[in-house]
Formats: sequence, C-alpha cells, structure tokens
Amino acid sequence: MQNRVNDVLDLAKRRGFFWAAYETYGGSAGLYVLGDLGVKLMNNVEELWRDTFVRPHDFVEVDTPSLMPMPLLEASGHVANFKDPMAECLNCHRKYRADHLLSDAGKKIQESLSIEQIKKELTDLAIRCPECGSTSWEVKPFLTMFETRIGPYADNIAYLRPETAQGIFVEFNRLFQIERSRIPIGIAQIGRGFRNEISPRQGIIRLREFHMLELELFMDPNDTKCKYIDEVLKEELYILDERRILQGEMDAVAISIMDALASSIIKTEWLAYFMALSQRFLQSLGVPREKQRFVEKITGERAHYSAQTFDHEVFMYELGWIEVAGHAYRTDYDLTSHMKKTGAEYTASVQLDEPQKVKRRVWSIDVQKLKEREPVRWKEVMKEYSNIKDRTNTPPQSIAGIAVDPSFIIIKEEEVMLQSRKFIPHVVEPSFGGERVMLACLLYAYDIRDKRNVMHLPYRLAPIKAGVFPLVNKLEMEKTAQQIYSKIKKAGIPCIYDDSGSIGRRYARVDEIGTPFAVTVDDRTLQDSTVTIRERDTWKQRRVNQESVVDELLRNSNS
Amino acid sequence: MQNRVNDVLDLAKRRGFFWAAYETYGGSAGLYVLGDLGVKLMNNVEELWRDTFVRPHDFVEVDTPSLMPMPLLEASGHVANFKDPMAECLNCHRKYRADHLLSDAGKKIQESLSIEQIKKELTDLAIRCPECGSTSWEVKPFLTMFETRIGPYADNIAYLRPETAQGIFVEFNRLFQIERSRIPIGIAQIGRGFRNEISPRQGIIRLREFHMLELELFMDPNDTKCKYIDEVLKEELYILDERRILQGEMDAVAISIMDALASSIIKTEWLAYFMALSQRFLQSLGVPREKQRFVEKITGERAHYSAQTFDHEVFMYELGWIEVAGHAYRTDYDLTSHMKKTGAEYTASVQLDEPQKVKRRVWSIDVQKLKEREPVRWKEVMKEYSNIKDRTNTPPQSIAGIAVDPSFIIIKEEEVMLQSRKFIPHVVEPSFGGERVMLACLLYAYDIRDKRNVMHLPYRLAPIKAGVFPLVNKLEMEKTAQQIYSKIKKAGIPCIYDDSGSIGRRYARVDEIGTPFAVTVDDRTLQDSTVTIRERDTWKQRRVNQESVVDELLRNSNS
Repeated sequence: MQNRVNDVLDLAKRRGFFWAAYETYGGSAGLYVLGDLGVKLMNNVEELWRDTFVRPHDFVEVDTPSLMPMPLLEASGHVANFKDPMAECLNCHRKYRADHLLSDAGKKIQESLSIEQIKKELTDLAIRCPECGSTSWEVKPFLTMFETRIGPYADNIAYLRPETAQGIFVEFNRLFQIERSRIPIGIAQIGRGFRNEISPRQGIIRLREFHMLELELFMDPNDTKCKYIDEVLKEELYILDERRILQGEMDAVAISIMDALASSIIKTEWLAYFMALSQRFLQSLGVPREKQRFVEKITGERAHYSAQTFDHEVFMYELGWIEVAGHAYRTDYDLTSHMKKTGAEYTASVQLDEPQKVKRRVWSIDVQKLKEREPVRWKEVMKEYSNIKDRTNTPPQSIAGIAVDPSFIIIKEEEVMLQSRKFIPHVVEPSFGGERVMLACLLYAYDIRDKRNVMHLPYRLAPIKAGVFPLVNKLEMEKTAQQIYSKIKKAGIPCIYDDSGSIGRRYARVDEIGTPFAVTVDDRTLQDSTVTIRERDTWKQRRVNQESVVDELLRNSNS
Repeated sequence: MQNRVNDVLDLAKRRGFFWAAYETYGGSAGLYVLGDLGVKLMNNVEELWRDTFVRPHDFVEVDTPSLMPMPLLEASGHVANFKDPMAECLNCHRKYRADHLLSDAGKKIQESLSIEQIKKELTDLAIRCPECGSTSWEVKPFLTMFETRIGPYADNIAYLRPETAQGIFVEFNRLFQIERSRIPIGIAQIGRGFRNEISPRQGIIRLREFHMLELELFMDPNDTKCKYIDEVLKEELYILDERRILQGEMDAVAISIMDALASSIIKTEWLAYFMALSQRFLQSLGVPREKQRFVEKITGERAHYSAQTFDHEVFMYELGWIEVAGHAYRTDYDLTSHMKKTGAEYTASVQLDEPQKVKRRVWSIDVQKLKEREPVRWKEVMKEYSNIKDRTNTPPQSIAGIAVDPSFIIIKEEEVMLQSRKFIPHVVEPSFGGERVMLACLLYAYDIRDKRNVMHLPYRLAPIKAGVFPLVNKLEMEKTAQQIYSKIKKAGIPCIYDDSGSIGRRYARVDEIGTPFAVTVDDRTLQDSTVTIRERDTWKQRRVNQESVVDELLRNSNS
C-alpha cells in the first residue's frame, strides 16, 4: 500500500466511520463527525475500556457538565496555564501556533520555551508568514479554552471543560460520601473535552472537540500500595524516561514494571499498574506491544498539575509516534486547589488501628484584647469566629472584615487523641483520547488482500458482527435470509442484511468495514437448512445448520 | 408519602443518581451531575431507546460536534428565532424570563406573545421586581444559545448546539450517500444539547446542558407511507389536539392511531407511528398509559421549523404534566434552509418505474452577447459557467463576479426523459430529553414499604442487577460470596458486593436503588452449596444452587 494513513482516512470517510464536519459550510478545522460505524466502534472501544479500567476494580463512573464556571478553572490553574504561544503576523494579521512555525522551519523546540524566547527565535530565524511572507511578528499566549457566558449576565464567564477530570475533582467530596468513604477509589468519566486550538492541522489527531476516557484514582498518600500490582509486575513496557531523555537518548527500552518501580523510573504503584493496563488495552485493540512506548514528560514540559507524566504513544505509520493516553501523577494538586478556593473539605479519612496521641497547635482569640483593639465591632468578630470549627490551620487574614493581628490571637499547643487520620487524597490519572485510540485500532486492523481492503478488527470491536446475504434474488432465499437476519438481531448481535450486487461485492463490502462473518443463504439452504459462514480473516467458508448461526456468532463474543 | 418528587430528588442525591453540579462553588443553575447510578440508568435508558426507535428499523446513528459555526444556525433559523423574552429591572438590573414573571403573577399567557405585548402586560399588571420591588422594566429578546468563538479570530462565532438534529441535517448528503441512498431512512443521535436559559428554576426539569435522544426520519414527500404503521393502528393515545384546544378543551381523550390518521388529527403516518412507539417506550420505563398524553402545539406556539408538533407529556406528580418528548413534522424546512445557504445538494432521488417525459426550462449563456457586454472578462465567466451542472434552476445572481443579466441569458424549454425523480426529503422527528425521561422512570418506580424506600425499576433499567452479601463476617462465607460475585460480574451483569452492616440494612440499601435481586451466602451455603435469592418487589426469598445464580439472573435480562 502507498500510504496506510491516507488509505484508512479515505475508507473511514467513504464508509462512514468518521469525516471532517460541516463540509458543505466550508468545514471547521478540528471538528469531526462519527458516522454509524464510528459510533458503534467508539461504543465498543468505550466498553472495552470499562472492562479494562473500571469494572474489574469496582470503580465508579460519573457524568458532569461540559460547561464549567470560571472560578473553578481558575482554581485548577487552567485559566492561568492552559495556553499556547500564538504568533500574529503584523502585516496580514493571520495567527499561528508560534512553536509550530519554528518546528516547521526545522527548529527543534522544547514545550517549556517562554514567549520571549519564541519571539527571539522567530526573529533570529527570520521566519516568514506562510500567508504573506512578512517577518514581523507579535507573540502572546492564547488561552485554549472555549469561553462563553452562562445566563444573561456578561460577567458570568464559563468555559467548556478542557478535561473531564475537573468535574470529578470538584464533585469529589459528594462522590466520596456516596461511596461510603472507601479509599482507594477510582472515579471514571467518559465524555467530551474541548480545546480551542489556534490552528489545528492534523485532521482527527488534533481536535477542538473530542472524546475523552478518564479515570482518577484517589489514594491515601501514606498508603500508596496498589493491590493489583502483582498481576503486572513481570509485564514489560517500552519506556523512555526523563533521565535517559536528558542524556540525549531517543529510543525507548523494554523494562519490567517490577524494575521500573524498584529503580523509581515510575514513581508510584498505581501509575505503573495503569500503564501496564494501558498497554494491554491497546494490545486488545490490535496494536502490538513493540509499536507502543511510554515517554516521560521532562520537568518544564509537564502540565502544571503533574509530578510525573508518561505519554503513551503508538506508532501510527506515516503519522509517526502519536500520543493516545497520558498517565499523570497529579498528587493532591487539584483537590488542594479546590479546597483553597472554596473552603470546602476535599478530604478523606481512615480509621486508625489504635487511637494516636498527637500534639498540635491551636489558635484562639483573646476576647479581652480584641475588645480593647476593636471596641465597636468585636461582637461581630466573635460571632463569625464561633463558626470556625477547625482552628488547627493558620488563622484567616481577616474575620468579619477586621484584619487578624497577633495582638489578639493566642496560639497554644494541645494534646489530643486521634481516632482517625484525615488527609487530602493523591490522584493518579490515566486519560485517553477516544478518536486517537479508534484511529490506532483501524490503522492496525487495515490490510489489503488481492487488491481488496480488509479490516481485521477484533470481534468485540467490530461495529457489525455479521452480514446476511441471500445468494441470488429469489423470493424463498430472501425470506429465509430475512428470518436468519431477524434472529441474529434479536439475539442482540449487530448485523446487516444486503441483497444488492454480486456476492463477491457484498463480501468485499463487509470485509472493508471489519465484519468478521458473512452468512449466505443459497439453493442448498432451501433443501437441507444449512448456510455458509464465511470468515473475513481467512475467506474460508463452512456450512452450518441455519439454526446454529446465532450460537456460532456468540461463541466469538469474548474474543 | 408527603411529596413524591422531593422524596425521589432527595434519594437521587443521597444515593448518587444525580444532583445539582458545583455545589462547593455555590452551584450553577441548570447544570447537573449524574453519579454512578445515574450514568448506568441513563445508559440503560439509551439502550432501551435504541431498541425501540433505532434497531428494529435498521436506522443508523451519528455523533456530530456540539460546536456549531454561526452560519449553520443562521440557516436553520435558530439565530433569529431561538429566543426567550427577557425582562430587565431598570432599577437593580436583575434579569428574568419575562413570560415567567407574568405566569408567576397568575396571568395565563401564550408562547406567541410579542415583546411589546409582554411589556404592556408587565406595566398593566404593575409587576414588581422580585429582587428590589421596582416596577420599571425593559423587555427584549434573549438568544438562548451559548455563544463562543472557534480559534483566535473574534469574528468566528459559534454556538453550542441547541439540538443534536442540526448536526444530522447538515451532514445529510454524506450520510445519505454512505447509506447507498436508501429512503426512507432514520438517522439518530444521542448526545448533549445546550440551552442558555435566562434563569432556570425547575432543577433537573429545566437544564442548560442536557442529554438528548433524537431521531430524524427522512421520507419521500410523495410517498409518506410508514411500513410499520399496521403494527400500531389499534393503539390508543391520549391526545389533546389543536382543534379541541382552540375550543377551550383541557383534557386529552383516548383515540386510536387509525382514527387519529383518518381524521387528520395526526398529519402523517411516521409521526403517528413514532408517537405510538413513544408511548410504548414510556410504558417500558414504568409510566402507565393513562399518565401520558400528547398535546398539540397550536399555531404560533410551534417552533419555527414545524408544520405539526405534539408534546409527549408525563404526569409527574407534584410537578404536574411535564414534556418528555417532542414529536415534530419538520417537513423539508431544515434541508431546504441548508441548501439555500450552502448551494449544496440536500436531495434524494428514487428510480421511476418507467421513464417520464417532462418539459423543463433551461437557461444558458449566449457567448456572442456576453463577449459584447464583457469584452475583457468573458472568458472567466465562461470558465465558471462550464462548472454549473444543473441549469434548470434560476441562474445565479453573478458569475465570476459579473452580474448576470437577461441581455446574455437564453431561456429555452426542453423535453427530457427522466429516469429518476429528485426531491428534498421531508422529516419527522421524535426528540427526547434524557434527564426528564430518567426522572419519570424514577418517579413511577418509587414506593415506600414498611417505611423503607423501594425503587421498582424494570430489570433492564436497574443500574445494579444484584447485590451479593455474606450473611455474617466469616472468612469462608466471604470467600464463597466473593466467588459468586466474580462469576456474576464476569457474566457481564452489573452487581455489587456488600459485607457491612446488618443484612436487613443491606437489603434496604439495594431496594432503594432498584436492585431487583439480592444473593445471600449463609451457613447452609457452606454445607449444601445453596444460596438465597431475595426479590426486591416481593421481599420473598428462595434457595437455589450457587451454580445456577447467573442463569437465574440472566433469565430476567429481557424483562
């Protein structure tokens, strides 16, 4: 084949897996449509993901809004940090992703480059505007979140969520309570994410609206054991870690989970466990282990919330290595941020085996001294003070509008017996991009045999499991074929009925969309009630009784 | 029970079906979270919907972006029409839904009231601002779509889709081609819709972001037969139609589909068919037929695109009658609009039984005359002209920038033999609100028995099908219970394991979330390998062999 990626994209568009949206309106970069086969494939990918990451561990799932009020994304750090450098041509006013202008010019750049550095590079290299050829640029950061307003007030700014994860963090305290405070707990969300890219160019790889599959694992920072780790200790991953990147190495090397943990290449067990599952997940989707690798983000390139991140990349032929998932150790960054902003308790607690005696510092107000300082408003201060339950933290900056001041604050040390230990959970996150996973799956399933396209999708991922065909247009044959079709459908197996064109052409049509089986009704069926079952991967046919067709298909449902 | 709606909302929040989002941030009206049980229930509702509306008819499904460029929603009429009247208090500048101010004051109003009429009513009735008491108002229309910008250019305005349907219409020509031009065809979409309500007050009933389940049926306007209509002809619906509304009637009356069609109360077969399915769908969700009704939208209240609309309403106890679905006959309004705006062909064609001779007018350019008029640019005009395939329409206003003018246009009548007939399909649409359907389902499932909450959800809708409980905390019992639990899970049946609290309390916990079965492992299990299966609806227990538990549960999977 000439170009596997182009072939697959053509096929995807022609047969209705996916295509660029709004073509009749001139298109809108970064927006895609899933057709019927795409919806079915995506649903199957999501189910496989649940079966890999969610169900085996009794994790739970939520569905939070895409719309997020501004304060929430200020707290999470996105309003300040979720930005890309934008270069505007001062002549024609076209706008570009500044770092892409540099990399297009062959300049290898780091994600950590500052706005000033980028501007200097553009000038030093005399980069020309692709539109008008000018070399004068303005560079500034561009917030890559979609902004809108909720309701009729101009100041009620909201954004479309850049990740589904924030919805989980904000709702953590309620979710934790509903789940009767069990920890560790995993909370998953499948839904859309939105990123207002400056000028997306990579088709379905860089989308402005896309499907995300995210899991946030909340654990006790003093007990970070993963109880499933033994199941994956011997599994090997191809890893390119920070240390080796900084040494100038470019290739990932195979290392077992056990060794990666022992040598602290992976910093915590749950992260290692999810990376192993992630590799298995992509293998189930048809991507061989050696076409996968985990590349660590070096300090400065990591997202603002992360203590360690690995990009899970898949080799996608002409596209090169493409990230399909991010595995991040987010620590308590997000919960702490929301706690600070809202004052709400984003904490968990565990019962202690035996009560513990601890010393702690507690602050209080010396009423007499307060009265002296604030003879008029001291009552208001005391009223608000009485609502402060936990006085082990530092005192607030002001109470009832009165600045807090050492002159009326007493700090004492006290000894208490603790029955439980309270903590802010730490978070480990595997996060997948649905469209990229789907594309990886199609790229590795695709093959050409005798000049015909065959999509070797695993049975459970195939959008359509069987085609039912009457060999020729003969009333009796059609009737029998329709009966078989109805029976398969009733058993909950997605199938299609097709009676148009030669049988060879019908086989070709289902091969191309990855349908593993074709059931053909022919003359012999009318005599002995047998039909042929043809297998997509071997093109071999065998005869079975028409009564056993459903069982034959169901036998594959776990593969 | 005191108040069924409040009870169910409390339960939904406490157990994690759904709750108002962003509570720690002070909340954001109109945004809700689905918890784990809510996600599972919604998924089950969606699957039931597919089994009712999509799969039996071999319809297809798509997934289009939430972000829609402005031109598209201008064409569809939403930018001009998707507005609510907003009243702003000229003293304190609070903003309200103007018609709601009137209805709160006991004034019965029609949706078709103009801005001027509303303003007059507010003044005549001296309606006071609920916030400050002022009576001076400004009233204007407020566009209830969320506005944003795609990319870095300020003029690239987009909206969040107010309905998923427009994504289907815009992509219709490609979808139609992928589906090899079969007509009638149904195209479904399950996804989020967004409506920027001015001040939503009804909790989960009036959301700014919500789940939609929509189906667009495209048919030949010259052949509007629905091939499934016979299956529902005898079914009766409670209908309150326009004629009876205009006569002042308030009650729906039972009428068969056959009679409703014969008397033109329902204008087209597919609309009637989907209304019948809609009633069945709600029945499957537990809502009795007599708690459902179909209320026609009278002229002036209908959406801008509709020739006939029925609201499918469910009686939701203290909330009154609430719309759960809209059934609209959209004609060719949407496809025609997008065709006009883009010039793309949103048409279908059917092969004629025999070729038809037709006369038609065709325009062409008189080259000689064009040359005379445009001696410089005539070649450019001819070049663009040669790309115009279909010259049976009126000529464009300009070609290659040259104004088209009768002086060089020839119009001839010609006779052609047509092999096929081309048409713009007509559309019938059933459209459901996911959260409202879910709420209806919970309201009718809810019951109190011996002071305990029981949610009588149909098996296939229940988020969790079984709870597995070891009677007491005894190592052997727990081990056996865990084995049974694993086996049920492996069979793909959602279940939970619970070993905390008294067995009565555990039964109560699963009753409340609608789990139909509880499997208990006790002392006898360890002797004779039998367990008890307890039924939620009867509280009856029976003993079965532990090996047959999975089969016992699966037996219910079609109910």
